[in-house]
Amino acid sequence: MNEVHSDEGMWLPSDPPKILLKTKYDFDLTDEFARKLMLASVRFPGASGGFVSADGLVVTNHHVGADAIQNLSSPQRDLMKNGFLAKSRDAELKCPEMELNVLQSIEDVTIRVNAVVAPEMKPADAAAARRAILSAIESESLKATGLRSDVVALYQGGLYHLYRYKKYTDVRLVFAPEQAIAAFGGDVDNFEYPRTSLDCAFFRAYENGKPAKLEHFFRWSSAGPKENDLVLVTGHPGTTNRLETLAKLKHRRDVTLPYDLARLRAYEATLIQFSEQSPEQRRAAATVLHSVANRRKAFAGQLVGLLDPKILAQKEAEEAKLYDPFIAKQSPSKLDDDIHKIFPSTPWAAIARSQKALADFEKRYLLLERGDAMFSDLTPIARHCVRMAAELPKANGERLREYRDSALESLKQILFSPAPIDPVLERARLQTSLTFLAEQLGGEHPLVLKVLAGRNPADRAADLVAGSKLFDVAERKRLVAGGQNEVNASTDPMIVLIRTIDNDAREVRKLYETLVEEPERQAYAAIAELRFKALGKSVPPDATFTLRLAFGTAKGYDVDGKSLPFQTTFDAAFARSALLGKVEPFVLPPSWEAAKAKLDLKTPFDFTSTADTIGGNSGSPVLNRAGELVGINFDRNRHGLVRNFVYTEVQARHIAVHSRAVLEALRQVYDAQALADELLGK
Amino acid sequence: MNEVHSDEGMWLPSDPPKILLKTKYDFDLTDEFARKLMLASVRFPGASGGFVSADGLVVTNHHVGADAIQNLSSPQRDLMKNGFLAKSRDAELKCPEMELNVLQSIEDVTIRVNAVVAPEMKPADAAAARRAILSAIESESLKATGLRSDVVALYQGGLYHLYRYKKYTDVRLVFAPEQAIAAFGGDVDNFEYPRTSLDCAFFRAYENGKPAKLEHFFRWSSAGPKENDLVLVTGHPGTTNRLETLAKLKHRRDVTLPYDLARLRAYEATLIQFSEQSPEQRRAAATVLHSVANRRKAFAGQLVGLLDPKILAQKEAEEAKLYDPFIAKQSPSKLDDDIHKIFPSTPWAAIARSQKALADFEKRYLLLERGDAMFSDLTPIARHCVRMAAELPKANGERLREYRDSALESLKQILFSPAPIDPVLERARLQTSLTFLAEQLGGEHPLVLKVLAGRNPADRAADLVAGSKLFDVAERKRLVAGGQNEVNASTDPMIVLIRTIDNDAREVRKLYETLVEEPERQAYAAIAELRFKALGKSVPPDATFTLRLAFGTAKGYDVDGKSLPFQTTFDAAFARSALLGKVEPFVLPPSWEAAKAKLDLKTPFDFTSTADTIGGNSGSPVLNRAGELVGINFDRNRHGLVRNFVYTEVQARHIAVHSRAVLEALRQVYDAQALADELLGK
Repeated sequence: MNEVHSDEGMWLPSDPPKILLKTKYDFDLTDEFARKLMLASVRFPGASGGFVSADGLVVTNHHVGADAIQNLSSPQRDLMKNGFLAKSRDAELKCPEMELNVLQSIEDVTIRVNAVVAPEMKPADAAAARRAILSAIESESLKATGLRSDVVALYQGGLYHLYRYKKYTDVRLVFAPEQAIAAFGGDVDNFEYPRTSLDCAFFRAYENGKPAKLEHFFRWSSAGPKENDLVLVTGHPGTTNRLETLAKLKHRRDVTLPYDLARLRAYEATLIQFSEQSPEQRRAAATVLHSVANRRKAFAGQLVGLLDPKILAQKEAEEAKLYDPFIAKQSPSKLDDDIHKIFPSTPWAAIARSQKALADFEKRYLLLERGDAMFSDLTPIARHCVRMAAELPKANGERLREYRDSALESLKQILFSPAPIDPVLERARLQTSLTFLAEQLGGEHPLVLKVLAGRNPADRAADLVAGSKLFDVAERKRLVAGGQNEVNASTDPMIVLIRTIDNDAREVRKLYETLVEEPERQAYAAIAELRFKALGKSVPPDATFTLRLAFGTAKGYDVDGKSLPFQTTFDAAFARSALLGKVEPFVLPPSWEAAKAKLDLKTPFDFTSTADTIGGNSGSPVLNRAGELVGINFDRNRHGLVRNFVYTEVQARHIAVHSRAVLEALRQVYDAQALADELLGK
Repeated sequence: MNEVHSDEGMWLPSDPPKILLKTKYDFDLTDEFARKLMLASVRFPGASGGFVSADGLVVTNHHVGADAIQNLSSPQRDLMKNGFLAKSRDAELKCPEMELNVLQSIEDVTIRVNAVVAPEMKPADAAAARRAILSAIESESLKATGLRSDVVALYQGGLYHLYRYKKYTDVRLVFAPEQAIAAFGGDVDNFEYPRTSLDCAFFRAYENGKPAKLEHFFRWSSAGPKENDLVLVTGHPGTTNRLETLAKLKHRRDVTLPYDLARLRAYEATLIQFSEQSPEQRRAAATVLHSVANRRKAFAGQLVGLLDPKILAQKEAEEAKLYDPFIAKQSPSKLDDDIHKIFPSTPWAAIARSQKALADFEKRYLLLERGDAMFSDLTPIARHCVRMAAELPKANGERLREYRDSALESLKQILFSPAPIDPVLERARLQTSLTFLAEQLGGEHPLVLKVLAGRNPADRAADLVAGSKLFDVAERKRLVAGGQNEVNASTDPMIVLIRTIDNDAREVRKLYETLVEEPERQAYAAIAELRFKALGKSVPPDATFTLRLAFGTAKGYDVDGKSLPFQTTFDAAFARSALLGKVEPFVLPPSWEAAKAKLDLKTPFDFTSTADTIGGNSGSPVLNRAGELVGINFDRNRHGLVRNFVYTEVQARHIAVHSRAVLEALRQVYDAQALADELLGK
């Protein structure tokens, strides 16, 4: 895609960029190296990590483990505030709902998937057939191998790959620093650089009650990267949109992103207000507020990117290259609605039409089926209870995808998690999202009237929370075990609400699948074919929260005329804390203040590189040529926020914790000699 | 409007509720009392205050004076943080851009205004004729009396009154407490109760370089109110919407409020993020952030109110009472669109039609003409420069209303204010509002393309701020003095931007005036006539930021089963600060911590009453039967947020600083004996 090869690319582990790495970096990516990448990389829920010892030790970001650490905490034992170090293996703390996945194999099933969809099929039939074959493939694979099996659409539907994962469900906390140093700078510094955060945590995977014994893991580098070194990043980038058509990107710019920003800002204002009431409320809302603020910032950056005429022009030029031959060189001056009317049978025109269709019901889809109107922890629980009753009696291939056999075990682990839910926070979240529903659809929309049930949003939220028994895991289990009869008989207001709107939600989901998802898959498959013909596999697929390899150079950048070095050092954290008056989020934990004299203040802390990452890469191991771990990726800078749509290395950087920072902190601050020794294989 | 007389009502000083007060409270509101109310009440920009000594001393809220106090501050002299007390009259600090207004007379000019509008006139002609007669009346009055003269539309156009004000433009700061105690609890406690804030400040009006000598002022009560006492509140409530039609209220609920909430949340997220970068940035953004957060909270409360079926039902019943006789008892079951189609010539139908028209261009109107797309301090300045060049050469009656002769002096005082403008904050505000513009209209809307001028919002904001000379008052004066030639020749990017969109902005303003404002005025005039016939003047007009009298009872209320007393005491402030860990905004200033031992901790601090207030009443004197000042109103509780639409005294309360709190603090904390003596007339 780039004429001069940049460091762009989140590459498939089954098809790594060997030639590119050889040409640009004189690096031989061997099959053995590729195999280790796969087997030593770990997928966390929505994020990444890596094995770092033969005894199942896993490193990731503190913010990736934060939910688990929070769930292990109590008012008497605040592990977020005070951190945690297991003094022995016996003292490692089991995390109730954590599941880790390790990729074992990749199989191309494109032909089998596409075979069930005939060109003359109606979209609804095609979507049903596709859903059935996906569930069948996954179910077969699960039965045959016992491994978690997911079929993933690559190139927006150009290829289908079956991924098989080994699952670890006995995962224990080994070490977490205090949140104050793990997230030093907090939401203020999120997407910013320079940074000085120790955003890492260690867990251990267990099998049969014993630490997992591993052949493949990343050795810890005690040196870390030098400036201009090649680095490799392995992990699970979540979503990019680089191969989407211009019509799709414009729809995101003009419809989806503005809606999502409005929603996140509404949530954020409420959560901030809630947090400020008391230290307890601040603690209760911390994780969800961070997640909302993080997405709001990321989406705002994306929108500014899509409003950049240069970026749109680049997208248009890329599309025109594929488009021109398709319409026999009748080169259009501009790829807009008119051209799609002149050539209505191109895949680009089909995608443009699906955006038009989507505009009519997207809000309803997101509010009702994604659940934006009922932003809470209880609502998805209530919905699973209601829907499992209806779906589980059906044949596997006919169920909604999230209830296919191969997904049930993981789903139940989440649904029956004993993690406590704060009723006061639930009420605040529900009030703001119920109000948001009315803001979006209008106070007299039938759905609004149904959901509010004759109450204003504040009273409705209070009723729902006060009346619901779903805070109790036993009640959830009772409902799921009881099936349709118990669900129908329930007078729990959350269950009643979900029951009342379930037909509407299913209807709009069907619209989405039939009018958008399936036509897009077919169109993108056609575009992918053209792209393969023109460019081969030189363009990797968009990110899909599956394992990818990125690479780049450890280096700094210039901003507003100032040169930022590629790494920071420990002393910068102390300096910044002092400069900002030692107020949150710039308070160093007491352990660091106490250890200051012992610390080598010139120890590298965080560093940046040009490697191509995105949300989901949090916790990604950053490796050197020898395959040793030199860092743990934890953020991008704000210049990298446009990476959803285009890669640039002018200023865009990812940010990682330096491997030496972890060693120095473990030894000098936390007296965690055994853990440091384990990392170094001693 | 209420069958059993509640404490509802923001009454005209020219028509006070004498009978009501006599009946309900056995209080004789004499003409002398009414005259004092008028001449001792002071209007601040957007707020209220009152004279409290014969030497021109004025009390208001600290948050009302905050802009002025901030402008008098510098990094070396932070009056917001440290407070201020003038040790002598010589040491009182002149506030560069403050103008106080004191009402001198009210004249009914309804007949003269309506005489120029003939029934057969087109809306555009009617609007022009109305604008001309208003400017003529004001201009005449100014010439004849030398007093600031404003014609105000009451009952949304049912009556027109000419208000004449004495202006004070030499206003000096006498005393301000530290913001930490003035706004104790900050935005967290805004619209909440119990409260413990000393939200007051003292200024002095000067004439000819000497303290103004006054006949009318409110004596300070050293006792304050007792529970269940009658209290009277005099001040300038800004806006209520109680007499608006159902169609208008639904438009607010479904269109205007959701838009405004989306906008304010976008601003708020940016301002919070900006504030968190450093203590300096926090200071720079504090006032605007408070104002945005305050409005966001207020609007959210209003929306929840309009989404309350009970409130809408009450509105519908009120409307039906007037509506029924109008359509000859053909009682409609529901006042909706259908009834307006069946009876298209009622004034309610006309207002419903104007909402439909408005929906088509309201966003453009608010973004462009109200300036929501360019949320900054520089933009209104640039616009005044551009528009004064075009407007001032026109005849007075033909100008845009804000440039009529009688308004120019006050306008120039603001336009040429030397108050500094922070360029970093301007850039952040512009970036977020330019992005918001694109979110609202779409990335390819011609207006968006014009405003962004080929740049993304971040770069465009940077360009505008870096290139503009309007930070400098001399440049503004040069442009205004130079008129059209200088404005046309200017290459200042802010001026160029405003010039580029001025035709579009004027066009959409014209749409608003012709399709909404004028038809609504005529329709509301018809409704007002019906209401006068049916109910006389027993229903006061909606608030219009003119002087009004409210009354009520000092009393507490119950919430979530808990009884809240009508007043708090000093010790509650110390207790709350300790409970919340003495972190912002719950840090008491050092002066209070130091004085704690000396203070009578049982001194009443803040109190609540049922009196009917709204935004604009900030700083309102709260009086007892003797006309003595017993409190300074500074807030409503959240139950009072629905007061825009309905009055209720079930839980809704306004909140005031107790007169004894001020005395005790002045004497024991601030050693301000002279000021305390002046208040007590010693």
